[in-house]
Amino acid sequence: MKTYIYKNLSEEEISSLTQRNIDQKQEIRTATEEILKEVSLRGDEALYELSSRFDRVELDTLTLDQDDIEGAAYSVPRERQRALEIAFQNIHRFHSTQNRRERKIETVPGVECWREIRPIDKVGLYVPGGSAVLPSTLLMLGVPARIAGCKEIVVCSPPQPTGTISPYLAYVLNLLKIDKVHLVGGAQAIAAMAYGTKSIPKVDKIFGPGNQYVTMAKTLIQSSTNVAIDMPAGPSEVLILASEEAKASYIAADLLAQAEHGPDSQSILVCTSVALIEKVKQEIQKQLQELPRAAIAEQALEHSYIVQVDSLEEGLEFSNLYAPEHLIIQSDRWREFVSRIQNAGSVFLGHLSPESAGDYASGTNHTLPTSSYAKSYSGVSVDSFVKKITFQHLNEEGVKHIGSTVEILAEIEGLDAHKKAMTLRMEDL
Amino acid sequence: MKTYIYKNLSEEEISSLTQRNIDQKQEIRTATEEILKEVSLRGDEALYELSSRFDRVELDTLTLDQDDIEGAAYSVPRERQRALEIAFQNIHRFHSTQNRRERKIETVPGVECWREIRPIDKVGLYVPGGSAVLPSTLLMLGVPARIAGCKEIVVCSPPQPTGTISPYLAYVLNLLKIDKVHLVGGAQAIAAMAYGTKSIPKVDKIFGPGNQYVTMAKTLIQSSTNVAIDMPAGPSEVLILASEEAKASYIAADLLAQAEHGPDSQSILVCTSVALIEKVKQEIQKQLQELPRAAIAEQALEHSYIVQVDSLEEGLEFSNLYAPEHLIIQSDRWREFVSRIQNAGSVFLGHLSPESAGDYASGTNHTLPTSSYAKSYSGVSVDSFVKKITFQHLNEEGVKHIGSTVEILAEIEGLDAHKKAMTLRMEDL
Repeated sequence: MKTYIYKNLSEEEISSLTQRNIDQKQEIRTATEEILKEVSLRGDEALYELSSRFDRVELDTLTLDQDDIEGAAYSVPRERQRALEIAFQNIHRFHSTQNRRERKIETVPGVECWREIRPIDKVGLYVPGGSAVLPSTLLMLGVPARIAGCKEIVVCSPPQPTGTISPYLAYVLNLLKIDKVHLVGGAQAIAAMAYGTKSIPKVDKIFGPGNQYVTMAKTLIQSSTNVAIDMPAGPSEVLILASEEAKASYIAADLLAQAEHGPDSQSILVCTSVALIEKVKQEIQKQLQELPRAAIAEQALEHSYIVQVDSLEEGLEFSNLYAPEHLIIQSDRWREFVSRIQNAGSVFLGHLSPESAGDYASGTNHTLPTSSYAKSYSGVSVDSFVKKITFQHLNEEGVKHIGSTVEILAEIEGLDAHKKAMTLRMEDL
Repeated sequence: MKTYIYKNLSEEEISSLTQRNIDQKQEIRTATEEILKEVSLRGDEALYELSSRFDRVELDTLTLDQDDIEGAAYSVPRERQRALEIAFQNIHRFHSTQNRRERKIETVPGVECWREIRPIDKVGLYVPGGSAVLPSTLLMLGVPARIAGCKEIVVCSPPQPTGTISPYLAYVLNLLKIDKVHLVGGAQAIAAMAYGTKSIPKVDKIFGPGNQYVTMAKTLIQSSTNVAIDMPAGPSEVLILASEEAKASYIAADLLAQAEHGPDSQSILVCTSVALIEKVKQEIQKQLQELPRAAIAEQALEHSYIVQVDSLEEGLEFSNLYAPEHLIIQSDRWREFVSRIQNAGSVFLGHLSPESAGDYASGTNHTLPTSSYAKSYSGVSVDSFVKKITFQHLNEEGVKHIGSTVEILAEIEGLDAHKKAMTLRMEDL
């Protein structure tokens, strides 16, 4: 990991360091467009073929029902069941605070305005992982969907080599009371939920992370159909802001936890202490030796870096420019910085709050904006599964109060029928 | 306007009636891509050229400052100033209820989680209209941006033939305390705010309606840069749900108010009474005769239609499938239906609440999801100008409570460094 000294960096260098690669490869686009076309034209037939081609599984069915799910869930050991349940409860508890009524107000006498929350009817959750299994992703999407009250929750996940789903996913489906799952992965799963096939219903909004093909499919769907997506997704990233009293072993572990995600992950350390930076580098080498996914982590560390700063204030300035998906503040002074954090997805405060706590069980969501999207996007929450409808009601008094204002504004904009619609009501008072 | 009888419609016919054209014309895409490329490569130079080509104005400057704005605002007559101020106040009053703190919770003892709201730093507002002037659009975007606390509010609007801006826009800029405006319209305005030029700053999120080129530019920007957009926008639409006691003249005026927007607008009447349907048709013909924009409205009415239903319940069923941008319920029984409205952008309740009230001055926002996007999107609000960051803090007790759950889930997912990050903390307790 290369170390930069913040005060020596030019504006251009900072801009280049905070830039993530959002290039879309043309070959990925072309291949994905082909998959979308296949699924939109040939539905289930295409899905069976693509499973055979990409997942190397010959499926008998694309859909597992309640019995299949319960059968699969059966083999989860008790201790692991318990861990999944605790995660479920904590995520449920935190997300339950997010769905709140708003009050009705009278903007002027006789004009009542308010918003009401409605669940998005049909949502599609994509849970990646053929060989790797990601029950936590299903928890992070399924819990807010349930709290929001979505009527139909469609889940797609690539089949295991055995043509079924992982017991852990099955167990979480049971916790979420979802009685069906579709064995489809990759871009074809996104296509199926966007267009609908015989086996898989069309949805209104698609959620979930995935590889470059999945991300490209979501982008293409968003710009060519009326199906919404949760957010654009890039490689995962962490920025750790640390002062001298932080522990090198914790920092190294947190950087490696991010790096082991994939070769394109980015782990960034922003630190006030030269001595600590050296210790962290040594700790990384030490911990790498015991890490099963060391090869992946090493690739990720190649395009990761360290920024040496004079103060935590300076470090936070850099962090706000970078807008990290995950921000960890390992400093005794973390309280002072909360209000100054402008751009970040999820923030982990103090020495005892590793990112993995939020990845799994603190209760916060781990589906977060990457690639500097934290400047404008929030992570997934109950908000992502609802929409808010505005309502207004005018009585006679209300028409008297705002009638002429509406008439004049319609006049200014040259929209006579807009004016007339109000004038007719005013005349009848 | 053709009349359909709901109970005689097949599922396919309903699906086709509720379908809006979201085809993107290849020629518009190609032309827009060309504009984006020009602006990204040549910045201001391209903007001057495009203004000359499309707006037929030779500009000396792309930016008007405080003095220019005050100069332009000066000519607004007092009565119209007052109307703009009342609209501003009502919109401000309603949107002020939307930005609320959330409470901190302990998901388990020692694990605190919460969300905090942060404004999006830099937002770009596009206000369309070269010949037509739309101060209401600037109000609808500027007020929530101000309430959210956005640091930099960039406004682009095409130049008037005189090379300046309309006095009405200038007056609203003053109300909003925005001291700069850029004379750029169309796809080039979107490009300028997405890439940044010498005169126009790059923003994090772009808002505002526009023609097909503007919409295409927003779509392309969203899928190729890290700049977000408010929502995809299609032609405007209204669905009026009316029972026999409704007034034909009000219904006709509301249908025409929508139809005068543009030839691609859609006005739909869903009505329980055959007699009322006939009266509305006659009223439309009568009101059309006095309407300056009759030619536009007539084109829009050609692809508008009427659905005759047996009950308001049936009508609401159709409305929820259509998911209208604007829904007007002209019935004495409107109260019964509020909770059953699932999909709509903004709803106008009762006989005295025309859409034009919400377009201008009731206080609600008029930037709303069209083309059935109301199934998954909300209209613009303060929410659109902020993001929510999640925070978590674990103390020793918190680590004791969820530590082993995190370890087990990391094990299930095969992410050893994730586990290690927690194990190291647990060992030190």
